[in-house]
Amino acid sequence: MTENRLAPISELEVATLSRYIGLDVGGTNIVGGLLNERCEPIRTTRCATEADRGPAHVLNRIETVINEMRAAAGSHRVEAVGIGIPGFVDPEAGLSVFAGNLGWHNVPLGAEMARRTGLPVFIDNDVRMYIYGEAMRGAGEGFGHVLGVTVGTGLAAAVVNEGRLYYGGAQMAGELGHIPLPGIDYACPCGLTGCAERIVSATGIARQAADALQAGESSILSERFSPENGAKPTAADVAAAYDAGDALAIRIFERTGDYLGLALAYAVTLFSPDIVIVGGGVAQAGERLLAPARRRLQQSVYRGYWERLTIRTAFLGEHAGLIGSALMASKQLMKSQQSGGM
Amino acid sequence: MTENRLAPISELEVATLSRYIGLDVGGTNIVGGLLNERCEPIRTTRCATEADRGPAHVLNRIETVINEMRAAAGSHRVEAVGIGIPGFVDPEAGLSVFAGNLGWHNVPLGAEMARRTGLPVFIDNDVRMYIYGEAMRGAGEGFGHVLGVTVGTGLAAAVVNEGRLYYGGAQMAGELGHIPLPGIDYACPCGLTGCAERIVSATGIARQAADALQAGESSILSERFSPENGAKPTAADVAAAYDAGDALAIRIFERTGDYLGLALAYAVTLFSPDIVIVGGGVAQAGERLLAPARRRLQQSVYRGYWERLTIRTAFLGEHAGLIGSALMASKQLMKSQQSGGM
Repeated sequence: MTENRLAPISELEVATLSRYIGLDVGGTNIVGGLLNERCEPIRTTRCATEADRGPAHVLNRIETVINEMRAAAGSHRVEAVGIGIPGFVDPEAGLSVFAGNLGWHNVPLGAEMARRTGLPVFIDNDVRMYIYGEAMRGAGEGFGHVLGVTVGTGLAAAVVNEGRLYYGGAQMAGELGHIPLPGIDYACPCGLTGCAERIVSATGIARQAADALQAGESSILSERFSPENGAKPTAADVAAAYDAGDALAIRIFERTGDYLGLALAYAVTLFSPDIVIVGGGVAQAGERLLAPARRRLQQSVYRGYWERLTIRTAFLGEHAGLIGSALMASKQLMKSQQSGGM
Repeated sequence: MTENRLAPISELEVATLSRYIGLDVGGTNIVGGLLNERCEPIRTTRCATEADRGPAHVLNRIETVINEMRAAAGSHRVEAVGIGIPGFVDPEAGLSVFAGNLGWHNVPLGAEMARRTGLPVFIDNDVRMYIYGEAMRGAGEGFGHVLGVTVGTGLAAAVVNEGRLYYGGAQMAGELGHIPLPGIDYACPCGLTGCAERIVSATGIARQAADALQAGESSILSERFSPENGAKPTAADVAAAYDAGDALAIRIFERTGDYLGLALAYAVTLFSPDIVIVGGGVAQAGERLLAPARRRLQQSVYRGYWERLTIRTAFLGEHAGLIGSALMASKQLMKSQQSGGM
């Protein structure tokens, strides 16, 4: 074994330490961060994505965020930029193949930003970058095999084994939101019926509530969100009703958590993770969702998996995506330097 | 790119070329093989496992098979031994953690054989070795991301990405036989109810037939296998009845294939393979099983997976496990030589 401890850092060295830039491009906001040599965020910024104004506009906004973070780096050298973006991404080609909520088809995001900034730019799917950040520096730190799921607008998953992201063919692995679950009869825009994310997502929770109110079920939500006034409850409204003891809201969270647990059962049995991290906006519902999910998961997997499994909520928040994409950018940079190209 | 073609081999070199030994230890038979420097089998042997006589006896038989193959190598140098064995295996420790059909608990198979033979010995789960062989040299050759399933006594799966086996935490990934499927109410020895392999396996096919006959369903099997005479049909009997146009047998294969397709849908959506290889004894049923499996799989996965997916039956037969374990042994040997230990 070679000695691998970090040596103390001198004042002079501090002034020349590496910096990384991480971005998380969402349908609503672009979040950017400047990260230090250990990929810890030291400055963040955000702006509206304004995706409706088209890819050229969004590319300009991404460039602006990168330049702002680069200015914040001062005299430090920015080594590389990592960008997480929704939908199907081809990281090797630096191509955003398809991003539904941005309206993007085959946008050469990586190459374009590399050209504009002169920096090495690495792009990947936003969920993978978020889970990679949580796996390496968040809830999954110290675990060898990490399964991360994000319950937000949709349901998605990513797997990190010994620091290595699992991609599968065409980088399409981990589409947990599109496994078919029994008893779900909602059609999915993907073309299937019964996809897990029709229920297990913020939109799924809101949909279940709207359908129940439409069917005339009684709830403390009934008054504000009647079929007559056309207003529809959000997942946050349902969570608030849950906390007020509303039977409908409780039943919706129970059902959603139960399906989350069942979806996780498939992923746990096939991937055999040491830890499951539950992240994304809906993870803020905490035990409302996790208690039924845990119950169902325990009932649905061989006890050999259950007994060695840790389940945690993500805790890096919006920093997870910045950290994950900066870490991936630094890893790719090192790899390309070793092989002598980029 | 460096030139990577094989140079012609001289007579002198042939005499000193490497040999590998591969073994597949099953509940019934031990199959052994001598493989050449490219891990192609050049001699095979088999003997009964006689597992009922205890681990010490089986270890002796394994040693005998290794010695026989070593003798067959003549003046060639045997570099390493690879052994596939059922159940949970810890390859790094060389430990057979649990093998139900051998009655083994924590048998140090790898260390013991290394001690007795003086050769480097690598052990791993038999399904992983079988699928690894098929992925690298059989039906999966040339594909980057391979999902292999074996439908035999049970149902199991393994995944090979760019030549690398997927293990997961505690080497427990890929237990496709123990995912819960809707509409299956058989209890499983693993402690769960509704496990896929209760239906999708040779025993599952036989069980469905026995249950139907017990319930008095009419079939050409009814005469030979009546509840009165106590005889029970095997999966091969059901396949023969299928070929004779028996409605019950056709329904059983349709149902089994349908469930296989559904089980595959979960694995395909999570692992995103380029190819699915269906192996194991029941794969010999061919289209009887694969036609309904394909139909259900297509209905149950996002078309982006389906459109790029190849589905094939395994074709190396019992050589797959020998090739897979010899390849893994040679790979591990190279790794340990690079890192300077073993």
